[in-house]
Amino acid sequence: MKRVLDRNRDMAARVREKLGVRNVIMINLISSPGAGKTSLLEKICEHLSGEMRIAVIEGDVATDRDARRIEKYQVPVVLINTDGGCHLDSNSIDMALREFDLDNLDVVFVENVGNLVCPAHFDLGETFKLAVVSTTEGDDKPIKYPMLFREAMAVVLNKTDLLIHTDFSHETFLADMHQVNPGIPVFELSCRTGDGLDEFLEWIKLSVSKKV
Amino acid sequence: MKRVLDRNRDMAARVREKLGVRNVIMINLISSPGAGKTSLLEKICEHLSGEMRIAVIEGDVATDRDARRIEKYQVPVVLINTDGGCHLDSNSIDMALREFDLDNLDVVFVENVGNLVCPAHFDLGETFKLAVVSTTEGDDKPIKYPMLFREAMAVVLNKTDLLIHTDFSHETFLADMHQVNPGIPVFELSCRTGDGLDEFLEWIKLSVSKKV
Repeated sequence: MKRVLDRNRDMAARVREKLGVRNVIMINLISSPGAGKTSLLEKICEHLSGEMRIAVIEGDVATDRDARRIEKYQVPVVLINTDGGCHLDSNSIDMALREFDLDNLDVVFVENVGNLVCPAHFDLGETFKLAVVSTTEGDDKPIKYPMLFREAMAVVLNKTDLLIHTDFSHETFLADMHQVNPGIPVFELSCRTGDGLDEFLEWIKLSVSKKV
Repeated sequence: MKRVLDRNRDMAARVREKLGVRNVIMINLISSPGAGKTSLLEKICEHLSGEMRIAVIEGDVATDRDARRIEKYQVPVVLINTDGGCHLDSNSIDMALREFDLDNLDVVFVENVGNLVCPAHFDLGETFKLAVVSTTEGDDKPIKYPMLFREAMAVVLNKTDLLIHTDFSHETFLADMHQVNPGIPVFELSCRTGDGLDEFLEWIKLSVSKKV
């Protein structure tokens, strides 16, 4: 296991360098299955593909369903099927990046396999990790799956439109989140209604323009 | 990896034998984080602990929150914290079972780590796997995470009370599910409102009495 992680880290460093010299940022989206990573990417592509050059790497255990959803937005998409594997690794990212014209990109979004545990352990060479969690999963995820939330640069709390139908406690969620990662920005939004999306998209624009 | 799986399978066989000779069944609950495994176990303990002798093994990456929820129902609970690990294995189950008086039990429920991918690969020596999925995760989970749904004896579709607030398509869900695992029973219910719970609890009673 240590050798696997060491090899992954070495390749992640090479990926990071490859992107760095071209001033391309890479954002690694991680969440449970069904929290809304693809929906969030659809919103990002819809609203931001006119003002920045976006590419997407779609990681999935099986099927090309998510990749097909993204292709509609006319951005370059590479699909990685892990065939049962529970996370992406830096080697598969390095291969996928070869499919893009990196000199003509501003940002690569990576949609990791839907999994709160394993993807947090694997550096892909990303600029930063973005955690996505949804109100319907309950308010206890930050404390129960701390590694991802500790590693993430920011958190999206999706499905706020369903909040009133659940027992989700904002207070518990934020208290636990800030215990795990003090000061981490939390964007509360609904991909379905669009509520709260503007603030998040502004932050993405800022992140890409600053090359965080 | 193969060696890890082989060793796990050997110990799973020993666990299965240990339970088999005592006529104890073991049900391995697997789902995404927040799909409702603990809520389902709470309902099982609430309604069935009077008529069958239940014990629970709680698997979690971190915290004892789920174990504390179950303890309220006066059933024996053993907590396994995987400390970052993404699934339970048969060795940890074998250790946990030593804490119970197996000669005076009918059924052991195992709540696996919240993860649709890795737990499906690890035989714990269970009698069968029960997959739990919730309407708010979307209708595409069976086809996107086929291994679990192929391995499971039955599926619980939880959070049916939220169905009307989502874009979940019953038709798609069931068509994909039966493509992956033709004829698998699907119990649609809401742990929150109790709708549909009776039919599922009857099935659990039947499974335990028949020693499936």
